[in-house]
Amino acid sequence: MSFYSAVDVITAKRDGGVLSDGAITWMLDAYDRGEVAEEQMSSLLMAIFFNGMSVDELNCWTDRMIESGERLDLTGLSRPTVDKHSTGGVGDKISLILAPLVAACGAAVPQLSGRGLGHTGGTLDKLESIPGWTPFLSNNEIRRQLDTVGAVICAAGQGLAPIDRKLYALRDVTGTVESIPLISSSIMSKKIAEGTHALVLDVKVGRGAFIKTRERARELATTMVALGTSHGVATVAQLTSMDAPLGRAVGNALEVSESVDVLRGGGPSDVRELTVELARIMLELVDIHVDPASSLDDGSAYVVYRDMIQAQGGDPDAPMPIAAQRKEVLAPNDGIVESIDAMRVGIASWRLGAGRARKEDPVSAAAGVVCLVREGEAITKGQPMFELHADDEAHLQAGDDALANAVKVGERPVNATPLLIERITN
Amino acid sequence: MSFYSAVDVITAKRDGGVLSDGAITWMLDAYDRGEVAEEQMSSLLMAIFFNGMSVDELNCWTDRMIESGERLDLTGLSRPTVDKHSTGGVGDKISLILAPLVAACGAAVPQLSGRGLGHTGGTLDKLESIPGWTPFLSNNEIRRQLDTVGAVICAAGQGLAPIDRKLYALRDVTGTVESIPLISSSIMSKKIAEGTHALVLDVKVGRGAFIKTRERARELATTMVALGTSHGVATVAQLTSMDAPLGRAVGNALEVSESVDVLRGGGPSDVRELTVELARIMLELVDIHVDPASSLDDGSAYVVYRDMIQAQGGDPDAPMPIAAQRKEVLAPNDGIVESIDAMRVGIASWRLGAGRARKEDPVSAAAGVVCLVREGEAITKGQPMFELHADDEAHLQAGDDALANAVKVGERPVNATPLLIERITN
Repeated sequence: MSFYSAVDVITAKRDGGVLSDGAITWMLDAYDRGEVAEEQMSSLLMAIFFNGMSVDELNCWTDRMIESGERLDLTGLSRPTVDKHSTGGVGDKISLILAPLVAACGAAVPQLSGRGLGHTGGTLDKLESIPGWTPFLSNNEIRRQLDTVGAVICAAGQGLAPIDRKLYALRDVTGTVESIPLISSSIMSKKIAEGTHALVLDVKVGRGAFIKTRERARELATTMVALGTSHGVATVAQLTSMDAPLGRAVGNALEVSESVDVLRGGGPSDVRELTVELARIMLELVDIHVDPASSLDDGSAYVVYRDMIQAQGGDPDAPMPIAAQRKEVLAPNDGIVESIDAMRVGIASWRLGAGRARKEDPVSAAAGVVCLVREGEAITKGQPMFELHADDEAHLQAGDDALANAVKVGERPVNATPLLIERITN
Repeated sequence: MSFYSAVDVITAKRDGGVLSDGAITWMLDAYDRGEVAEEQMSSLLMAIFFNGMSVDELNCWTDRMIESGERLDLTGLSRPTVDKHSTGGVGDKISLILAPLVAACGAAVPQLSGRGLGHTGGTLDKLESIPGWTPFLSNNEIRRQLDTVGAVICAAGQGLAPIDRKLYALRDVTGTVESIPLISSSIMSKKIAEGTHALVLDVKVGRGAFIKTRERARELATTMVALGTSHGVATVAQLTSMDAPLGRAVGNALEVSESVDVLRGGGPSDVRELTVELARIMLELVDIHVDPASSLDDGSAYVVYRDMIQAQGGDPDAPMPIAAQRKEVLAPNDGIVESIDAMRVGIASWRLGAGRARKEDPVSAAAGVVCLVREGEAITKGQPMFELHADDEAHLQAGDDALANAVKVGERPVNATPLLIERITN
């Protein structure tokens, strides 16, 4: 027998009330059992969009999502565990470099990841462009690889926070994605269930990010840091700029290649800078006091990367997929690059074939964009600004169309937004 | 091929935007076809609850609900048509008296009604306590009866504004009932589709009404008057008090008997006052200048009532159902009746068996409450305040329990709220 009614829970939240732990637990469990209908949950989610959740409500909501499934047990490993989550950006290949780098410094990194949707790519999609590599590991395989290699990037199992999976699918079709408590509980329930001891959140803000303003990014970061901390996960957030694409490469195989450049001590300076900074925070959280930059320069991070790829069936020496079609986009006139719109570049990469509109769509390994100019750079008319990669002519054209107006060319030097904006701790 | 996406429509409304006619039309039609899912419509309804609708949006929304079904053609009758709608109160039997009264004065009243739900009774439920009476008429029968008798109270056909039926069922389970644009479009789409030329809205406000404050009642009334007017229906709203029950009788057969008392020139003064006032407004709207009070006193309204009941198979002389169980509720002490809580009396009548929780539940014809005291009246300890009627002992007890604290007894005379609060015209 139930002591709650879905309509009462919905109207209480709608009218600005605070839901009790009992009401939240009942609602989520009844939804999980199919007793609360999708249309009831979606109207509650919309009411939450408008009226938010208190700290206690959000803690309880997140607890319930965690307890709806299994929790990975990462205790008893030979190294402390620390993970990173990014809210998603264009050209954001940081995980591919960061996981082996932090492992090379002595921590264990359990990166349970997802796939890309819309204009941002997914870490698993990128690594799947490496011949032979698989994202599917059992819980035992994850533990074993963390103990031996120290870094795992794999698919989050269906057993982690299963209510979140159901809720996310519902939010996606009902216009209730962009809610700070709902975003926070979705991200944090999975990270807490994953069993990591510490966590760094890379909260992207700007044109190419889901979050456009610092204020909102700060609110999201603060909410997630509080949720992690109250669940025993040492959590720090770093707000970073996502106005322009990160690095030069946007696309699956293209980003893997750029990641390898950085792991070997080279690559674009912004990618290296952000990776090193996030590694520093992660290592601090687990009390390891070494300079991660030296592990890029001495090749030790690259060794761990190769081990990590091989442990999951991949061949780090195999040739990467190459696009059948390429095209350069040329500068329309002389001037200085005032801005490169990460959102337009992300959409172009998606249209070129690197991204997907629905989660069941396939992606092209080779497609994407290489940015040949940077913000603040002087360019001359006819100089190549982008190189487009696609599997066929139609995708090439769609990507080219999507890139229109992505670059603003001006006459005076510009001050680009610094990459590292602000750190949020508990 | 569709040019709209449900998520875009939902997020536009969620973010405070104004929906185009095209977007509204597409959304409602796609919902009707089953292409927009229930969970998408419910999250849009919740966004409308928070962000409202502009005049243009609401006109388009209402149009679409009307055009989703058939429209009754009431042109070419020998009399002008005018209808009344009440937002629902306790003891509100006005329609039973008003329809024949206005017909006796020369207009035609096409009352397409519904059933009761929760603490307020439905006009059809009341009339069904008359042996033989049926609410089911064809469109041709409605027209014929309007021409001959001048008054019809019958069930609204399934063909009128069918999207409203679907939307109402959804709102009922998703906590999105209490939205002024959604209430307005639901009521007005059916009344406009019904084909009446003029309409009076009795907007109840107070303890026993759905709307508790004058401000909100005024907002609802203004919205509905504008909707009616813009659709060519001359519409006026009267705000009336619903703090205490209307009249003495609450329940199905009990209210029919009280209505007959008023139709024969007697009955409680508040019922007579409100009926005559609403009749006056209705007659004004169709340019008939007679005093409706005289039609109660000279018996002509009662004659039309008998014709109306007989035309639909009912026997106005048949004995009415009588409850097997009765009980008096006595005054706990001496004093003056400060207030009688219409909500508690309405719930008591429901618990006694006169109302229903779900639309498929049956109702008792005989059950209900008779109020034996009025606000402002001096009472002495042990004097009967209510007479409860039920079909069995269990219902009698449930009704008795629900009546607790319905009457507040004080020491000083009170000023009751006037019945007629304010009139809203275009």
